[in-house]
Amino acid sequence: MNWIQPLEQWIEEADRVLVVSHIHPDGDAISSTLAMGTMLQAMGKQVVMVNESPLPKKFAFLPGADEVKQVHEVSETFERVVALDCADRARMGACCELIAPGASVVNIDHHATNDSFGTMNIVQPQAAATAEILYDWIDQSRVGWNEKLATHIYTGLLTDTGGFRYSNTSPKVLRQAAKLVEMGISFHQIADQVLETVTLPQLRLLKAALGTLQQTDDGLVAWMKLAKADIANASHDDLDGIVNYARNILGVDVGILFREEQPQTVKVSLRSREIVDVGRVAKQFGGGGHARAAGCTVQGTIAEAEASVLAEIRSQLRSEAR
Amino acid sequence: MNWIQPLEQWIEEADRVLVVSHIHPDGDAISSTLAMGTMLQAMGKQVVMVNESPLPKKFAFLPGADEVKQVHEVSETFERVVALDCADRARMGACCELIAPGASVVNIDHHATNDSFGTMNIVQPQAAATAEILYDWIDQSRVGWNEKLATHIYTGLLTDTGGFRYSNTSPKVLRQAAKLVEMGISFHQIADQVLETVTLPQLRLLKAALGTLQQTDDGLVAWMKLAKADIANASHDDLDGIVNYARNILGVDVGILFREEQPQTVKVSLRSREIVDVGRVAKQFGGGGHARAAGCTVQGTIAEAEASVLAEIRSQLRSEAR
Ligand SMILES: [Mn+2]
Ligand SMILES: [Mn+2]
Repeated sequence: MNWIQPLEQWIEEADRVLVVSHIHPDGDAISSTLAMGTMLQAMGKQVVMVNESPLPKKFAFLPGADEVKQVHEVSETFERVVALDCADRARMGACCELIAPGASVVNIDHHATNDSFGTMNIVQPQAAATAEILYDWIDQSRVGWNEKLATHIYTGLLTDTGGFRYSNTSPKVLRQAAKLVEMGISFHQIADQVLETVTLPQLRLLKAALGTLQQTDDGLVAWMKLAKADIANASHDDLDGIVNYARNILGVDVGILFREEQPQTVKVSLRSREIVDVGRVAKQFGGGGHARAAGCTVQGTIAEAEASVLAEIRSQLRSEAR
Repeated sequence: MNWIQPLEQWIEEADRVLVVSHIHPDGDAISSTLAMGTMLQAMGKQVVMVNESPLPKKFAFLPGADEVKQVHEVSETFERVVALDCADRARMGACCELIAPGASVVNIDHHATNDSFGTMNIVQPQAAATAEILYDWIDQSRVGWNEKLATHIYTGLLTDTGGFRYSNTSPKVLRQAAKLVEMGISFHQIADQVLETVTLPQLRLLKAALGTLQQTDDGLVAWMKLAKADIANASHDDLDGIVNYARNILGVDVGILFREEQPQTVKVSLRSREIVDVGRVAKQFGGGGHARAAGCTVQGTIAEAEASVLAEIRSQLRSEAR
């Protein structure tokens, strides 16, 4: 692969490297950060790994996770930066402030929307995860595999493919996973920690949401609501995934979670199976996303948001039926 | 593989074959039944596929699922039988009545406890699923792969490995999955249907159970309760998986679900991560299972069952700590 030699050359020339990823980091962002940090250290470089947001607790088990700093802990700026899993510069959030003007930035990512913001751009939209790209590098590098790296890469593959369930799960990803399992990683514990583990606040939110579950008569749309009181103290991470309980009901196409962020401000998460393009629905309300997962913010009460979003979905369902 | 030739020879000699699996069939049981039926039909044989229990709705999408009969629909007995995913004859339940005295039975299974009840026994405890064994056969057979067979086998691999998460997920299984994905199956839809889809009764039970969630002060044990009124009309399948919500809480080792089957009869489902051997706990109450998943029935009220099962777990935790 002809991007590996330039990447290794770039690293060769570096002394001190900043490794960053996107805000609210997911498993791929964190794992890529840790794998890159581990590789750079193995190549004798000084490394500072930083993220704008604290790492979700469920990733604390990853080897090296305690070395990832938060922005306010770092005061210097860097001439050499590796940005991972970021489609554009803004995705790094406040980490941008740690990048010296004129710094050399390596941009390694798999988002089709990547705007090539780097000095060197290794962007592979066909990859399921940034970890998949790093796998290819590690596999060819003289550093080679160790359990730590294998654990990082497996975690990135696992999370960005939704546990090998999303349609981006290619034969290549499954073969990479097979090789990593063969290396003796604790893949069962990784899946348990990362995909199965829930927190008490999550279960409390789930219970509250399930208490409000409603479904249209045709069964195609199911929705739940969380009032401001329910979500007090809930983190981004706690709320993640709750909307799927509505979407996952047998026969449902669109699942929705309405949550009252502020009085008169309702965040709407939308998921769909195959009929309704929820990206289009969200766009009607100034939001964004893609056909199967999207979100928007609606001004008004929960009841008002409910009425207008459901009306929009019904109108899409009607035009689909035509 | 030296079992394939005798198996194909046996099929060659057959005209009409009964294909059965175990009661309360899981994804592997159903998929193996369908794959075997499909292979036999392709080899020009008459096939009757039967199960004691109706197939869970979520498997209805599998090609050929509507051809699987229930026992009462079949009046003849068979001289040639293939039993799949059954550790012993009794696992077939009432399907045993369809086996003629002196019939030739092929027993294909992956349970280490298989008692070789067949005339021909193809038992591979190192296989993650019966579907894994059938994969090897299909891959070598002159019938060869088609999308229907690939869908069956993928479903069996997926379900018996808990979505490639359980420790039985071998590199071999992942490579088989890679090949099946390469054949163009709708693996994303399969995972969605089989692993993600929930029913409204399941969500109602979950909500009721979450409302009773308790945890010991040290956080190691979490439990939930379902009263008889909650589980009226609930199927085996609806209740499946609810106990995992207790086990999956961050920091929990043992998760328990107590459910009142009858007044004074409480079914107890136990799951654990790594400390407590719940098989041993269940055994104290006349139940069974293994270290990570077990169950028992306790006579008394839910409160009584709760007290005695928790006492037993505490005593195991104390002896572990020593
Ligand atoms: Mn990613
Ligand atoms: Mn099985």
